[in-house]
Amino acid sequence: MPQSPWLNITDNSDFSIYNLPYGVFSTATRRPRVGVAIGEYIIDMAAVAGRGKFHDLKVPLEVFEASSLNAFMHLGRARWKAVRQRLIQWVSQENSPLEQLKGECLIRQSEARMHLPVQIGDYTDFYASEEHATNVGTMFRGKENALVSNWKHMPIAYHGRASSIVISATDIHRPKGQIMPKDAETPAFAASQKLDFELEMAAVIGKDSELGHPVLTEEAEDHIFGFVLFNDWSARDIQRWEYVPLGPFLGKNFASSISPWIVPLEALQAFQTDGPEQHPVPLPYLQKNNPRNFDIQLEVSLQPEQGEKQIISRTNFKHMYWSIHQQIAHHTVNGCNLRVGDLLASGTISGKATGSQGSMLELSWNGEQPLQMNSGIHRSFVEDGDTICMTGFARKENIHIGFGEVKTKILPAL
Amino acid sequence: MPQSPWLNITDNSDFSIYNLPYGVFSTATRRPRVGVAIGEYIIDMAAVAGRGKFHDLKVPLEVFEASSLNAFMHLGRARWKAVRQRLIQWVSQENSPLEQLKGECLIRQSEARMHLPVQIGDYTDFYASEEHATNVGTMFRGKENALVSNWKHMPIAYHGRASSIVISATDIHRPKGQIMPKDAETPAFAASQKLDFELEMAAVIGKDSELGHPVLTEEAEDHIFGFVLFNDWSARDIQRWEYVPLGPFLGKNFASSISPWIVPLEALQAFQTDGPEQHPVPLPYLQKNNPRNFDIQLEVSLQPEQGEKQIISRTNFKHMYWSIHQQIAHHTVNGCNLRVGDLLASGTISGKATGSQGSMLELSWNGEQPLQMNSGIHRSFVEDGDTICMTGFARKENIHIGFGEVKTKILPAL
Repeated sequence: MPQSPWLNITDNSDFSIYNLPYGVFSTATRRPRVGVAIGEYIIDMAAVAGRGKFHDLKVPLEVFEASSLNAFMHLGRARWKAVRQRLIQWVSQENSPLEQLKGECLIRQSEARMHLPVQIGDYTDFYASEEHATNVGTMFRGKENALVSNWKHMPIAYHGRASSIVISATDIHRPKGQIMPKDAETPAFAASQKLDFELEMAAVIGKDSELGHPVLTEEAEDHIFGFVLFNDWSARDIQRWEYVPLGPFLGKNFASSISPWIVPLEALQAFQTDGPEQHPVPLPYLQKNNPRNFDIQLEVSLQPEQGEKQIISRTNFKHMYWSIHQQIAHHTVNGCNLRVGDLLASGTISGKATGSQGSMLELSWNGEQPLQMNSGIHRSFVEDGDTICMTGFARKENIHIGFGEVKTKILPAL
Repeated sequence: MPQSPWLNITDNSDFSIYNLPYGVFSTATRRPRVGVAIGEYIIDMAAVAGRGKFHDLKVPLEVFEASSLNAFMHLGRARWKAVRQRLIQWVSQENSPLEQLKGECLIRQSEARMHLPVQIGDYTDFYASEEHATNVGTMFRGKENALVSNWKHMPIAYHGRASSIVISATDIHRPKGQIMPKDAETPAFAASQKLDFELEMAAVIGKDSELGHPVLTEEAEDHIFGFVLFNDWSARDIQRWEYVPLGPFLGKNFASSISPWIVPLEALQAFQTDGPEQHPVPLPYLQKNNPRNFDIQLEVSLQPEQGEKQIISRTNFKHMYWSIHQQIAHHTVNGCNLRVGDLLASGTISGKATGSQGSMLELSWNGEQPLQMNSGIHRSFVEDGDTICMTGFARKENIHIGFGEVKTKILPAL
């Protein structure tokens, strides 16, 4: 059965009727506003709301005319669900109000420009893949000190930079900074020679928590609006010289990139699955009783300036040792508050298999085993002119839900 | 000569005519809005602007009716200076428009409630006192590894949490978290037993910088609106167990406290002074040609629940090894952008002399040398019921400029 009697949505569309992700878009004639992706189109939620179509759901026009989703998120999950239910009905039924308004309210994605979907408050980056932490730890501190003794007891994280988070399709200049050359005694100032991506997913917080009041693992989902793809750009040489003792700073904060469409938690519930078993058993505040990971297939491609696009990593979000529920419980256990618009990134997603690592650092083993590209060239890290593209989808029987992409071209240092 | 012919401002007032700091206040009948402190009063800037008194300066009423200073800061330094000049004139002249409006536009500070003065974007915490870094490093890593090899080459920093920054007079509950007890093999979950303050100052960013474009040391001041006192609350036992390898997280992000009045950079220019000499000479992008530190005297007092208030630390902001100008240049050298409302905290301010350290960790040497309080009690760290108050002022000849205070009471863990 087709997903819609009046709109052509291919079976493999990322933006199926089961997805309905939120974003912020503009066109030549429409200022930035909230949209929902469906097939090749965007539903202009401001235009639909302007016709009074969400009035009975008590969703005011302003939340969709806004240039971020924050106001809509503040309305709460009951309203999110009501709007989602209505859109599913409209898309799946003939002669629905949306079909009648399609000339005015459906925009081709190819004609739209996407913007950051949320006004980001705080951005936290976790470090939740055992494989990634082990790989990086081995390279930075040696095999004996690879996994620090605290790692299996808590979801390690640090605060990242919100100001430099940019939307997919924003080019990034290679950063400059202090680097300690091998065997040197004083640092040099140079463009990073070890520019890297990190394949991650980020949860968008849709509900505040109160300062001083922890969120339990069972309550964690109440605070999640949805997920995006997240590329945590990293300059490994800058990071290595600066990160002791207070963690990554300039090695990370020059840019992070996110995909434009926030896939709602509701769309992902069917894809919950067990994560790895946890030994030692974590402290009670981190314990969980039911499936908490998400089965989301992920890919990273690299396209050199003049070369062919090639997939260089394939992995799955379900491999993560620490789940988002545990991350939220940990983040707030000391009373730290979450706010609508915060991003919680998962940390690099690496699997066990060859080619399932989420960073060049791991894929090329810090440049010792450069990746052989189809076109005959090699890659140890990301070069000027390279475009890195991350995609992700969840699939089960006839249900396909995609995240679109986060795609970034690296420009030479300024 | 009195500072004002019509307003009584004592010579030692923190809020002299030379200061004119900005804050956000409310009263029983006035919603949160922008105010300027003068003597015992607050100038209600929204009320003054409502009478059209800033119209010719092209300062719209809305920026003062706002519940944060962000919109005013966005107007730029020329407008800040014009408003400041007008206030100085009005306070110092008889029959000025402000005197005529005083019944309506001057509010007693004792009748006002203060709010966070800015909507904070990103908050960065530096680590810029050589004495503090050496002391903490000695305790955490031993004397040989006290000052990490990168420390004298760059102003080390990490990103902190903006959501949990609160205004002076906000009580804070002792945080709970994971702690690794001495000689234990598995962590415990408990209320922190090593709750600490950190005496810092924070610069409030008043001008955006562009992603990808560094700010030079010479340009750094263009981006500073002013300074506040900053208490970077720290749970040393939580911090110690979690901070390797990605830096402080739950040990810090349960709360930070700031003073309500932002002292403008213009008021502090007269107090610029040389900082410590820097050896080795830093890389060119960090070099500076003229005085860059600020001579600001600082004090910390501790008042137990039933006891007497006592000063436990006296130091000076001028001791900092890395200046705010160098910090801004470093922060942006990789292209990281600053935004209006960002806070850059200095890091704990410690001097060389006994009693000039800016944290209990240093003052009590991690509890090995508890502070003897006047009332006969001892303190190794901050106890429930204690109130920590930080104050600061700059003084030269007849000019006195104060920061007010940041004062916080610690409540028992929830």
